[in-house]
Amino acid sequence: MLPLILIIVGGLCAIAYGIVTITDVMKRDAGTQRMQEIAGAIAEGAQAYLKRQYLTIGVVGIVLFVALAAFLGLKVAFGFLIGAVLSGAAGFIGMNVSVRANVRTAQASSFSLGAGLDVAFKSGAVTGMLVAGLALLGVALYYLVLTRGAGLDPSSREVIDALVALGFGASLISIFARLGGGIFTKGADVGGDLVGKVEAGIPEDDPRNPATIADNVGDNVGDCAGMAADLFETYAVTVVATMVLAAIFFSGPTGSGRAVLEPMMLYPLAIGAACIVTSIAGTFAVRLSANQSIMGALYKGLIAAGVLSIVAIAAVTYTLLGGFSTSFTTSTGLTFTAGGLFGCAVIGLAITALIVVITEYYTGTNFRPVKSIADSSVTGHGTNVIQGLAISLESTALPAIVIVAGIIGTYALAGLFGIAIAVTAMLALAGFIVALDAFGPVTDNAGGIAEMAGLPPDVRKSTDALDAVGNTTKAVTKGYAIGSAGLGALVLFAAYTSDLHYFTANASPTQYRFYQGVNVDFSLSNPYVVVGLLLGGLIPYLFGGIAMTAVGRAAAAVVEEVRRQFREKPGIMQGIDRPDYGRAVDMLTRAAIKEMIIPSLLPVLSPIVLFFVIQPIAGKSQAFATVGAMLLGVIITGLYVAISMTSGGGAWDNAKKYIEDGHHGGKGSEAHKAAVTGDTVGDPYKDTAGPAVNPAIKITNIIALLLLAVLAHA
Amino acid sequence: MLPLILIIVGGLCAIAYGIVTITDVMKRDAGTQRMQEIAGAIAEGAQAYLKRQYLTIGVVGIVLFVALAAFLGLKVAFGFLIGAVLSGAAGFIGMNVSVRANVRTAQASSFSLGAGLDVAFKSGAVTGMLVAGLALLGVALYYLVLTRGAGLDPSSREVIDALVALGFGASLISIFARLGGGIFTKGADVGGDLVGKVEAGIPEDDPRNPATIADNVGDNVGDCAGMAADLFETYAVTVVATMVLAAIFFSGPTGSGRAVLEPMMLYPLAIGAACIVTSIAGTFAVRLSANQSIMGALYKGLIAAGVLSIVAIAAVTYTLLGGFSTSFTTSTGLTFTAGGLFGCAVIGLAITALIVVITEYYTGTNFRPVKSIADSSVTGHGTNVIQGLAISLESTALPAIVIVAGIIGTYALAGLFGIAIAVTAMLALAGFIVALDAFGPVTDNAGGIAEMAGLPPDVRKSTDALDAVGNTTKAVTKGYAIGSAGLGALVLFAAYTSDLHYFTANASPTQYRFYQGVNVDFSLSNPYVVVGLLLGGLIPYLFGGIAMTAVGRAAAAVVEEVRRQFREKPGIMQGIDRPDYGRAVDMLTRAAIKEMIIPSLLPVLSPIVLFFVIQPIAGKSQAFATVGAMLLGVIITGLYVAISMTSGGGAWDNAKKYIEDGHHGGKGSEAHKAAVTGDTVGDPYKDTAGPAVNPAIKITNIIALLLLAVLAHA
Repeated sequence: MLPLILIIVGGLCAIAYGIVTITDVMKRDAGTQRMQEIAGAIAEGAQAYLKRQYLTIGVVGIVLFVALAAFLGLKVAFGFLIGAVLSGAAGFIGMNVSVRANVRTAQASSFSLGAGLDVAFKSGAVTGMLVAGLALLGVALYYLVLTRGAGLDPSSREVIDALVALGFGASLISIFARLGGGIFTKGADVGGDLVGKVEAGIPEDDPRNPATIADNVGDNVGDCAGMAADLFETYAVTVVATMVLAAIFFSGPTGSGRAVLEPMMLYPLAIGAACIVTSIAGTFAVRLSANQSIMGALYKGLIAAGVLSIVAIAAVTYTLLGGFSTSFTTSTGLTFTAGGLFGCAVIGLAITALIVVITEYYTGTNFRPVKSIADSSVTGHGTNVIQGLAISLESTALPAIVIVAGIIGTYALAGLFGIAIAVTAMLALAGFIVALDAFGPVTDNAGGIAEMAGLPPDVRKSTDALDAVGNTTKAVTKGYAIGSAGLGALVLFAAYTSDLHYFTANASPTQYRFYQGVNVDFSLSNPYVVVGLLLGGLIPYLFGGIAMTAVGRAAAAVVEEVRRQFREKPGIMQGIDRPDYGRAVDMLTRAAIKEMIIPSLLPVLSPIVLFFVIQPIAGKSQAFATVGAMLLGVIITGLYVAISMTSGGGAWDNAKKYIEDGHHGGKGSEAHKAAVTGDTVGDPYKDTAGPAVNPAIKITNIIALLLLAVLAHA
Repeated sequence: MLPLILIIVGGLCAIAYGIVTITDVMKRDAGTQRMQEIAGAIAEGAQAYLKRQYLTIGVVGIVLFVALAAFLGLKVAFGFLIGAVLSGAAGFIGMNVSVRANVRTAQASSFSLGAGLDVAFKSGAVTGMLVAGLALLGVALYYLVLTRGAGLDPSSREVIDALVALGFGASLISIFARLGGGIFTKGADVGGDLVGKVEAGIPEDDPRNPATIADNVGDNVGDCAGMAADLFETYAVTVVATMVLAAIFFSGPTGSGRAVLEPMMLYPLAIGAACIVTSIAGTFAVRLSANQSIMGALYKGLIAAGVLSIVAIAAVTYTLLGGFSTSFTTSTGLTFTAGGLFGCAVIGLAITALIVVITEYYTGTNFRPVKSIADSSVTGHGTNVIQGLAISLESTALPAIVIVAGIIGTYALAGLFGIAIAVTAMLALAGFIVALDAFGPVTDNAGGIAEMAGLPPDVRKSTDALDAVGNTTKAVTKGYAIGSAGLGALVLFAAYTSDLHYFTANASPTQYRFYQGVNVDFSLSNPYVVVGLLLGGLIPYLFGGIAMTAVGRAAAAVVEEVRRQFREKPGIMQGIDRPDYGRAVDMLTRAAIKEMIIPSLLPVLSPIVLFFVIQPIAGKSQAFATVGAMLLGVIITGLYVAISMTSGGGAWDNAKKYIEDGHHGGKGSEAHKAAVTGDTVGDPYKDTAGPAVNPAIKITNIIALLLLAVLAHA
């Protein structure tokens, strides 16, 4: 019981950090009346959007809750509810802090860059710690209730199904929030830029542009709430999948068996708890040095959190698993040591570090990729886009090789469970990584508020410097999220095959009847496996295509709305009339919610439809094989689609910034115009389609696991 | 012996058609002195490029020939030589006809559209029939020599290895020709447009542009010679792989066994021979109706060829396999009928038809996708590119579903051998499909010659109409090539696993020593399979990225060269001085040859490097599993990368043409400028990176097969 209590204490630390930091941030000066008015409008729009989004998801959620309760019982349905509510809460609270911190960051930036960084980073850290803390607490407390409260066996189907359902709840919020938020934010950004910068010739965040509040709302609902939901999901799903693997490997009569079952199931939770504490410690290391390097300040914090995490995980491993040399044998006959598992965790942290470095290389302004895009802008729009696409394709290579090396290394140390522990360790740093990302929209908003409220230009200079770093950290987080999702999907696939094996082995006329006579061939020589891989591979492509179209449509609607306002109120452009910001926000809200439904359902329904199409053609066994292969197919293309989109988009964005810094003729040059085109193309790539592939991968996997459970009750 | 003779007669029909048609085309009027001068410059440039390309490949080829002779013996090395030489010959002769037909098409177009179509299509048909005929003759004659001449058993390793090496020879030419030609043609096109249309404000094909001859040369070396090499490879590799499968399935002591071995090995060749005759018949059905619809004329020919092919394949099946109800049992215990195989062939033809229709939908100017890109051009460069990317992602869905349905259907009818027969039937129409494609560059050139020679505008109008149809048929051919490559790769993977099984089962201290104790697990649960899938999936991405960068670099070099000529000879722009066309051609030749080496080696070396990296880490068995999975990984992402690039590129191109037809403000409008950007982006997508993925997929597979053979001799 003690480890479980310590884990819960770890989770509570995150909540405590959140409360203390929120109080701290709220105490800061919120600036002038005009600034507060603008921030108020942003906050109002963001809340209105999120309310409508949650209402829509709520309808889907209630249907699913009832379905789960009917098919799989109340424990499963409540797991689903917990995952959904906590994921929603993390995004909601984080966003509410964010829309209050923006104006305070603007105000603080008028004193110093360091002060601005402090407010912005702290508000990001609130979101980060809430994501990690609530995800950990949700899983740990529900596990406590099920095993200690309801007295269930930790490795029983009831516990496993309930925890998987918790992951499903998180997934549901995630796919909708990522996609809806992404469509909103990029519809506003692309549409606002087109009609404002290009047509009317007014700068970004000009208060005369009716879409400017919507653009700032978008940063909060997309980059803050959407991203929080995404990483909450990855965190919850990874921890749950690792626990499921532990339950499978250590519950059988063979191997180390039940003696080590509970420590092994708690091990991922303990790693998570320990790393929350080290992440909090890391936030205190984020301080601007004399050289004023913002990236340097963030790196100091990340390195501190990483190094402390290695120590903390070592301590957790040593105490929970009884020393490094203790050896364990799984029910499948594989033997590894606690030290081996610790090695896997270190590999997980190393993968995180490498992905950060690689992403910075591909999206930072100091390196070849971004410079090559800037160079190619000199010869026009076309060559800018060609080079950007070339970089986006190329940028997938190193992350893929790192992930493959990670798979090989961890598998050699501790088999599949080793891979799972590596992903857990990667995700354990989520609190800090999300903090890195979530400060981006705050600074972006701060810049917007500074512009709209007419603050002196040096304030904007500070917030711009923060924002440029935010572009890279946002790309880093996305690389990290997709990398961990890639590895996490392997763990989920392992859970799928293990579950399938379990049901098939225990099928009889009275139990798991559906699985009688099922004998699944997952070999690549089975054409149905190839069919599954191909159809899984299609999901990210089709999903990405629909998401890009949705952004285009939403942006076009914004353009129409802004043109209409300019036409009907000519005073807006002269600064006499006030634009109707609310209408643009409201219109985008409706557009984004409408557009998110169909693509979100694609990964949800695909495995189910596929199963019931293949079953009558080729039988149950082949249907299970096809669905299983689909789970890997979606990760294989998904990894490349997502990395190429997020890195490519980041590179385009910073190539524009590089030119704006005075290269190739600077702002207003022909090269700059070409770079703006590249940036516009990169927007939905990096902020809508690319990141949304991530939850799409995981939800496909989770749905497949639930499908197995439902069929087991059939 | 009779069937083999009839097959060879079929192949000779193609050669005869070629000779007769070349004579016919060459007899046509070659126009004025000026026209012949221009055509002469294009021909000279194209021959100079091809000569240098073949010399470079020759060096690589000699090294490989010696290596193959040393490791696998002379029969294998000669197979390689035959494949390489015949593939080179098909491209070389086809291109030489093409550079003579262009000027004759221009001249004929000054009489009527029908006359222009007649010359252009006939010259394309020469390339098409030579591709199919030489590929078929190469395989059939070498098979004859090995079995009847050298008296080898048709199912012996020596025959199989020699035939696979023939495919490898074709692959080698294909990867270099596709990529080198693609870089040349798009470097000239993009670079010439940028500096001519955008900077100097002169129209396309203006004789004052020093890159204009290079642009026309590019059409011939890329779209004609490159594409011919690609389809020669697909044809040869597919037929060989199907024969290998037949040898594996019908040589064992179980099943129908040796009694049906020879008919089964000859069956794919016989289908090929029959369809050459029907394709030739189809060419006579290509005639312009009263409605002057060019696409309609081509469709008439395609439908005629398709329907006749069904009849011909039915006849071949009936006579060669002894009636439709004859049943066969493979050594793996699967039973199917001759009628089932015929059904598979019909499915193959149906897949071809569906891919043609789907590609026309995604790239034709009458449908939603192209119109949506044109619409989004109104709001600027950025939205044009966003919508183009969205369409390119979306366009993968229907072809993938068709291919999956094809796999399921043919597998149900006749297992893996059924899939192989379906691909064979698809490829059997290659003669006609290549004809559809190869008439494109001829009409493109004809338009260029008309422009440069100052022919009346209505000639240009005729050639433009032919060219617009050429855009769609080019996209159709690429969709067909990648679809068949996708299915063909499954057959190659089956050959890989079967070979591996054979070597492992027969390994002893005296024979296939390397394979002793090898036991390969191709299950998706094996993490090395996932590693292979991921690394295979990377190849098309990395390869595509490098190819796109290469085009950008070549285009930039063209821009520099043209700027230099304009600067040093100001008389060029006034039409007094003659530009130095040769320098631009020469410079691009060197650039394209240099740029094609590294990316071409990527798919060649990947399986070999992967094997020798994994072997010391995880042993032989896992190394074989990883390489095998890589073969499927490369097809899974390759299919999506290639389809999205070729369809997307075609859609961008035709969206520009749609606007030029007077929509959204027509030529010179802002929408048109945005559409030109999209077209520029689409150029390397559809004509360099996308189509080159195709040979990359197959060469990876062929190399893996050869690696198995080499290791068997170790």
